[in-house]
Formats: sequence, C-alpha cells, structure tokens
Amino acid sequence: MGISELSDRTESTVRFSEVDAMGIVWHGNFAKYMEDGRESFGRKFGLGYYDLYDQGLLVPIVNMNIDYKLPIKYGERIVIETIWKNCAAAKIIFNYRILRKSDRALFMTAQTTQVFLNNKRDLELCNPDFYQEWKKRNGVEIL
Amino acid sequence: MGISELSDRTESTVRFSEVDAMGIVWHGNFAKYMEDGRESFGRKFGLGYYDLYDQGLLVPIVNMNIDYKLPIKYGERIVIETIWKNCAAAKIIFNYRILRKSDRALFMTAQTTQVFLNNKRDLELCNPDFYQEWKKRNGVEIL
Amino acid sequence: MGISELSDRTESTVRFSEVDAMGIVWHGNFAKYMEDGRESFGRKFGLGYYDLYDQGLLVPIVNMNIDYKLPIKYGERIVIETIWKNCAAAKIIFNYRILRKSDRALFMTAQTTQVFLNNKRDLELCNPDFYQEWKKRNGVEIL
Amino acid sequence: MGISELSDRTESTVRFSEVDAMGIVWHGNFAKYMEDGRESFGRKFGLGYYDLYDQGLLVPIVNMNIDYKLPIKYGERIVIETIWKNCAAAKIIFNYRILRKSDRALFMTAQTTQVFLNNKRDLELCNPDFYQEWKKRNGVEIL
Repeated sequence: MGISELSDRTESTVRFSEVDAMGIVWHGNFAKYMEDGRESFGRKFGLGYYDLYDQGLLVPIVNMNIDYKLPIKYGERIVIETIWKNCAAAKIIFNYRILRKSDRALFMTAQTTQVFLNNKRDLELCNPDFYQEWKKRNGVEIL
Repeated sequence: MGISELSDRTESTVRFSEVDAMGIVWHGNFAKYMEDGRESFGRKFGLGYYDLYDQGLLVPIVNMNIDYKLPIKYGERIVIETIWKNCAAAKIIFNYRILRKSDRALFMTAQTTQVFLNNKRDLELCNPDFYQEWKKRNGVEIL
Repeated sequence: MGISELSDRTESTVRFSEVDAMGIVWHGNFAKYMEDGRESFGRKFGLGYYDLYDQGLLVPIVNMNIDYKLPIKYGERIVIETIWKNCAAAKIIFNYRILRKSDRALFMTAQTTQVFLNNKRDLELCNPDFYQEWKKRNGVEIL
Repeated sequence: MGISELSDRTESTVRFSEVDAMGIVWHGNFAKYMEDGRESFGRKFGLGYYDLYDQGLLVPIVNMNIDYKLPIKYGERIVIETIWKNCAAAKIIFNYRILRKSDRALFMTAQTTQVFLNNKRDLELCNPDFYQEWKKRNGVEIL
C-alpha cells in the first residue's frame, strides 16, 4: 500500500493587472494561479516542466474544470493548494483549492488533467517509465 | 414551443503573444477566445456586458469546463462558435466550439455557467425580468 | 529616390479582459495592440514572423517607448496605425498611433525598435540580404 | 538637503505562461514585472494603489520606456529593482532594473512616468499634499 495523493501549498498576492472592471480577479487569470501551483509542486517533488522535458515528455492539459466560489479582490493574499491525485491511467491529475490567507475562505476549486506526449508528439497510452519511477520514489501506490 | 438555443460565430487569428514555448496556444488563453465569443454573441443578440449592467445586473462565471482536443499554432485562423443553451434555472449557459477555419478540425469544446447578481451584488435566485423579456424577444421557449 | 515609410491600419474592439479596475485598458496591454499592428503590417507587406523565421531570422524588440494620451474604455472601437520607418542601421523601426474610430481622438503614440538575430542567435550588424531585397520590392530608398 | 531616490528589491521566477514561442519572456510581459516592482515598493513605502486611492488620487502611467538587454528564459530567478526618483513636477517617476539572481546579468532597464488625477479624473498640476507629506516622511528633499 502506498499513499494516493501529494500536495503543495504556495502563496501569492493579487496583482492590479489581474483584476477586471468589477475590481475582482478576471476568471481567466485563475489558470495562471493554477500554473503557479503546479510549478511550485513540480519544484518540490521533481515533476517540473524541465524534469519531464529532459525525459522527452510534454504534458499538455486536456481538461480544465474550474468552480468559482467567491470573488477575489486586488491586493488579497491568497493560498494556492495543489493536490496531485494518483490514477491508473497515463494521465496527471491535479486538484486545486485557492483560499484567502487570513480567514481560509474558499475562492475556487478546480481540476486539470494532463496527458503524456513523447518527443514525436504522439500520445503515450501507458505511463512512461520516468513517471512510474517518480511515483515509487514518492511512496505512491502503483495501481 | 420556442427554440432552445441561439448561436454566434466569430473569427480570429492566433497572436504571437498567445502561444507558449511549445509554439501552441497556452491553455489559459482559451478563456480569452471564449470571451471574444460571448462578446460577439452579446453584440448580435443584445446580451452584452453593458446591456446587463444597465439593468443593474452582473453575470460572473461560476463554472468553466474546457476540453482541449488539438493544439492550435501561431498564425492559425480560427472560428469561435458560441451557443447559448436555454435552461429553467437563473443561469446563463454557453457552449463553445473552436475550429480551424480551413478544414473545420475541432480544437476545443467548452462550457461556461454564469449567475445573476443584482446591484447589491446579491445572487438572484429567479430569472430577472430583463432576461425573461430577452428570451421572449428571441423566440426562446420559457421553461 | 524611394519612399521612406510604409503603413498599415487595422481595427479592434477593447475586450473586457483588457481593462483594469479603473475600467480602462491596462497600460501593459498596449503591447498586444502594437503586436496586432505589426502582424497586420507583416501580412500586408510580407514581413511577418514566419517570413523572417524562414530566412533564419529572429527580430526581438530591444526598445519600446509608449506615450499614453487618453484612457481607452471597454467596448471602444479602436484603429491601430503601424508605420514602418526606413533607417540605415540594421534595425526595424515602427511607429504606432492608436485612435478612437468614431472621432479619431488619439489614445497613444509609440515606437519599437527591433534587431536581427541569425539562426545562431547572434546579432546581425548589417542589414540581412532578405531585408534589403524586401526594401527594394517595396520601393524603399536604400540608405 | 534630503535624499533624491528610494529603492525596493523584489524577486520572481519566470512562469511558463510568460514565455513565447522562442522560449523567452514575451516583451509585453515586462510591464507585469514592473508592476510587481511598483507594488512591492508601494507596500514598503506606503505609496500603494489603495494608499493613493484613499486620498482620492489615481496615478495612471503616461509614459513607459523599456530597453531590453538580454532574453530571460522560463524558470529563471529574477530580481526586480524599483527606484523612485525625486522630481519637482507633479509626477511619479520610477526607474527599473531586472537582473538574473545568480550572476546579476542585466536583462532590462526601464522608466515609467505617472501623473496625478483627482477624484473628478482631472489632472493635478501641482503635487498633491499627500505626496508632499509622503516625501517629507521619507526624508526626501522638497524641490
């Protein structure tokens, strides 16, 4: 038996350029916060863009699903939680939660799904060796 | 009986600033194309930001779900289809399809859900009069 | 004697995602309008990103200078004028003017300077043959 | 005699969404780094957006001039230096330097000029009292 999820937490402050005419973060900018979350996760666990790229792997996003709970205002201090979820298929699945730092109010939950492309940009139907090894190193159950 | 959907079609060319290091549109930029689609729809059918704002209504997005089918490259000519879907609840639901103009290859499908806030920024649980009138004017069945 | 400048004009409508909490275009987004201008110019005169890339040339911007004259609001219809200026040095210089379509009010003037990098990413100190030929084809004086 | 400049230093890591098809930061994104610099300066010295807004003041940028020295790659750790420059006119002038953290290589220098608008959005020709007081509190020479 191994663990089934791994998580990272990073923080950010909402920039003036990220809010819209209503004074709240424009909905499309959440993709940036989620990218900040994935990159922070990647640095912590060795699953960053270059870690994969050096293995000849690209991991494009094939689905992104965001639920917006509360508006976020300019200047607010936010916490981005990025939770990697184990799955048997050749996919990388992350869940996200963005919270206000001060009172933990929940701004957003989301999920992204990524697939593996090899260096010919063909879809990998099985989990690449690198990814299986990465799971083992991190104590994750191989499904 | 009335109709259950209304649609708009607009075109764009992928900008250099919209592609990433892989030479394809960065996944977060699709929110802009979908906004272009909604704005074009709004101008065509009288349901734009200011049409609503003038009625004291804001319509924030509460869910966005995107399926990425094929990468889009710099310079490609794309068609953005925006399809309004009738529903009984006090929500605005749009479906989207983005296609390559030349051969109609499907790049993306997506859906957004918007809710109504009044000018106190409270959630409207019933469809605002303006929206019901707008449906009637456009021959849409009142569910 | 040849001509000393070439110009293009393209139009756009200000998107909701381009305005800030003051309801006006965020100053950093003008770089996108200028890019739209250069790309439109490039398509018209055969000096686009790929025209240059196919010659082994990259043309990064080394200076951008923008004077903001008037705020631009969401939904405004704008005209982007892109004026190529002849110069002896191995540089591409564009001037820009952005105007309101309805009354020609001037929103912005700007200038960008680009240099030539060859396919080893070294700076080209002399004008590349392709660029000299391009000037001739367009009736521009060779300084 | 007082001091004639005040400075702040903040750090950032280049995001995947900030680089272009050449794998380097898209030139238009430097406006975001400079905004990060101004906001960090504002928090340190009490000259942030809300500090001014609470005084009925808006400070739009009227000129931005950027010199790009070296390309910045995805993942690089950068230092953003923001240097406030004293001047007699009713303007806020900042200089900026962006450097690679590891070896202090200089990526960019820039300058922005901001003016004061009062709460009727009229241009203030004289330095507002709040700004003069702010200068005094920070030991700056009143020119």
